[in-house]
Amino acid sequence: MSRYESKDWKQSMKLRYDYNNMLLGKVDVESQHPSFQKKVGALTAQEIDAAMPALEKARLSIARKWGKPSRMMAWTKLPYNQKTVVRDILSAAKGIRKNFEYLVVFGIGGSALGPIAVQQALNHLHYNDLPAEKRNGPKLYVVDNVDPERMSALFDVIELEKTCFIIITKSGSTSETMSQTLIAFDALKDKLGEDSIRHQVIAVTDKAKGNLARIAADYGLKKFVVPDGVGGRFSELCPVGLLPAAACGIDIEEMLAGAAYMDELCREADLTKNLGYMAGLIAYLTMKKGKNIQVMIPYSDSLKYMSDWYAQLWAESLGKKYSFRKKVVHTGQTPVKALGVTDQHSQVQLYAEGPFDKVITFLGVDSYRTTYTIPTGFEGMPSLSFLSGHTMNELIQSEQFATEMALTHAGKLNQTITLPEVNAFTLGELMFFFEVQTTVCGELLGIDAFDQPGVEEGKINTYALLGRPGYEDVKKALDAQEKKEDKFVI
Amino acid sequence: MSRYESKDWKQSMKLRYDYNNMLLGKVDVESQHPSFQKKVGALTAQEIDAAMPALEKARLSIARKWGKPSRMMAWTKLPYNQKTVVRDILSAAKGIRKNFEYLVVFGIGGSALGPIAVQQALNHLHYNDLPAEKRNGPKLYVVDNVDPERMSALFDVIELEKTCFIIITKSGSTSETMSQTLIAFDALKDKLGEDSIRHQVIAVTDKAKGNLARIAADYGLKKFVVPDGVGGRFSELCPVGLLPAAACGIDIEEMLAGAAYMDELCREADLTKNLGYMAGLIAYLTMKKGKNIQVMIPYSDSLKYMSDWYAQLWAESLGKKYSFRKKVVHTGQTPVKALGVTDQHSQVQLYAEGPFDKVITFLGVDSYRTTYTIPTGFEGMPSLSFLSGHTMNELIQSEQFATEMALTHAGKLNQTITLPEVNAFTLGELMFFFEVQTTVCGELLGIDAFDQPGVEEGKINTYALLGRPGYEDVKKALDAQEKKEDKFVI
Repeated sequence: MSRYESKDWKQSMKLRYDYNNMLLGKVDVESQHPSFQKKVGALTAQEIDAAMPALEKARLSIARKWGKPSRMMAWTKLPYNQKTVVRDILSAAKGIRKNFEYLVVFGIGGSALGPIAVQQALNHLHYNDLPAEKRNGPKLYVVDNVDPERMSALFDVIELEKTCFIIITKSGSTSETMSQTLIAFDALKDKLGEDSIRHQVIAVTDKAKGNLARIAADYGLKKFVVPDGVGGRFSELCPVGLLPAAACGIDIEEMLAGAAYMDELCREADLTKNLGYMAGLIAYLTMKKGKNIQVMIPYSDSLKYMSDWYAQLWAESLGKKYSFRKKVVHTGQTPVKALGVTDQHSQVQLYAEGPFDKVITFLGVDSYRTTYTIPTGFEGMPSLSFLSGHTMNELIQSEQFATEMALTHAGKLNQTITLPEVNAFTLGELMFFFEVQTTVCGELLGIDAFDQPGVEEGKINTYALLGRPGYEDVKKALDAQEKKEDKFVI
Repeated sequence: MSRYESKDWKQSMKLRYDYNNMLLGKVDVESQHPSFQKKVGALTAQEIDAAMPALEKARLSIARKWGKPSRMMAWTKLPYNQKTVVRDILSAAKGIRKNFEYLVVFGIGGSALGPIAVQQALNHLHYNDLPAEKRNGPKLYVVDNVDPERMSALFDVIELEKTCFIIITKSGSTSETMSQTLIAFDALKDKLGEDSIRHQVIAVTDKAKGNLARIAADYGLKKFVVPDGVGGRFSELCPVGLLPAAACGIDIEEMLAGAAYMDELCREADLTKNLGYMAGLIAYLTMKKGKNIQVMIPYSDSLKYMSDWYAQLWAESLGKKYSFRKKVVHTGQTPVKALGVTDQHSQVQLYAEGPFDKVITFLGVDSYRTTYTIPTGFEGMPSLSFLSGHTMNELIQSEQFATEMALTHAGKLNQTITLPEVNAFTLGELMFFFEVQTTVCGELLGIDAFDQPGVEEGKINTYALLGRPGYEDVKKALDAQEKKEDKFVI
């Protein structure tokens, strides 16, 4: 029996969402003066109560879309509908571990941020530096840029004949990923013969449509499907994220079990006790109060790249020009990635003393997977020797609490999400929690959290600049738009 | 003769600062309607002209502090006053390269962000993964956190007897760095005998004061000095940054030459032609217009961590509660780290369609150090084959320009800093440029850009929580402050 089949164990692994320090009376200890309280912008119990009918309405609206591919909400079914897919992934992953020493993922956006975040959270923090026998799989390189220097650096450190490539793009027309694909195919063909492509490349793409699906068919590639109605930033729990994770030895079934558990928690009918819904509501209310910045600060190196994954989810989902009703709204809260304790020595000065323009979200951990005691030494120096005998665990957790208290004292809104431990189950919970929160917040804002029309213009401009047929007029418009004056270039 | 002794070469390596897209008439192409223009918040030529006397005044004020340790502006002298120090560093670096296979830097904040940024910019992008003979020095680990899991992971991948430790803290009382030091000393003593400490540890700290200076003396450690009047975030061009860089084979003399060249450029008397001063002014004016977010988006993996280094510089320097005159001001602009083209698939949706609350700073590169041609293939697919024959260099640069045009079209203020090439000289230029810009902006804001009083409370809270003698009352106050209600924890 897997541990996640035990109800007790699952409950012991439940995330906690604590929003005490978002509330009036908690975060305005410095002064009760109205002008200070106005700056702080804390929420009141009355405001929250008053918003509950809107939250209830959001729930009904979301319930109508839940699971529907046509509404881009097929991600909600991923914890349940992948039994066969998972079996297939586990088998492919076994093959990768057996046959390859390097795993290169070509993908960008959600196709990279999820795999990177999960690898950092659940594998060794210096995984690629470990000798092969101590790793759970091949060295992993997720290459999510088209910088020529990085591409060249990649080929310096892999051995082509020992490398498996996973190419991830739902549409099959992502310029960045397909450029990399052209390069990899050419290199494989050139050095190892055309047949090597079939053995060393796996495609993750649409079931039938698009260039990559066609290429996969032409070359006879092993292929996994990005299900319809699962957007890039909601795709971590489908083959996009599961295949690279499984290849590196991560328990993807436990991840999915964690997501299912969070789904269950977010079905709680009393919305005041529903952590996904309350987190969405609290975020919405702070946005209405003008907090346009959302800082995520995990106190764990393993959760560092969860901030990157979340930044895409939050930014692309909520950063919208138009409402559902086509009103111009320009919504969005800008995500900022930080790391505790590191950024206490970089960003916290600003958070403590700067403008009252942000919400700080702490990501904490109850139990780290290692305990490290700070040894004795330097006995003659009391300003150092007080550290001896404490664990690093105590030090990092004390610093987190110390920072929370200092920011609260300074009147800066903050909240804390705590993982009992970082493992595949809690990570599945966390990601699903954020997806629900984002959906709820988008619903309250009255915008479509699942599209990204604002990136089209940049893509089209790129096509025009690179001379893709059909974009000649755009090129002309760009030439006309560019009117730089030399006097403003120094 | 070194290349940076040639005036022509230096000029060919001059950074360019382009603020066309910050101006009315450039960034408001979408509509000339006053309500749109108000949202955009572009600067007008008249506004800039009107601010020139204030900028001139700032210059005079800065000139009075220039180079003065008592005003924390000793960093301005670093390009000139380190001949002996550099000789000493180069000799130590040679020893490190000869005797060690691993270099571990313990430091946090400026003591880590600078070394990380420079290493990423100037060495191979997968430096640690290269075989020893292809690297310019030992494997480098900059450990800037106290996560027990990370500490444990570090000791899994280094071999203690082949490791040099550089410990960096000016005060010698940074809890994080000194905890790590206790651990390293204990491990060395335990495994290799007390004598190994003297051979394997180098201290970078105050010339005389503080715990680390005393420890260095007690153990006979090789020591480098953080000069008086150089704050952590302005310390990259002193031994803090130069020693790790030199140990990894980076040309630190060229870095300093680049900084000196930028210093020269920022002495330009016509301030409209002075890039450091104009960049400071433009930032200040946008802050006055309510742009509280500053996004830095380098289009180069090598410059990725320059955003982290800059984020500390900008946040800690300008995020202040009090003005020079002790007025409560709560200034600050929140830095956001991004990466091009990667974050086009994560953040640009928000930047394009979301609120008009930010300035986007592109960091571009004229010549990448590698050229990579996208090969032919997939000829039957015109939506892919248009990429073939182009270089990745063209692709990334086109995407940068395409994104700039799209954001400009959307009315989002943006500016571009271009490096002719990423090398030690231009990196020295860039860092010194940002330091001048920050100083100028701080002066215009009327705040002290060189202190960080807002981090004290968190430090003191940590001392109290860990039972450091003398902090008992703080502990009591913390216990009283913490009044969490269970109903706000889900």
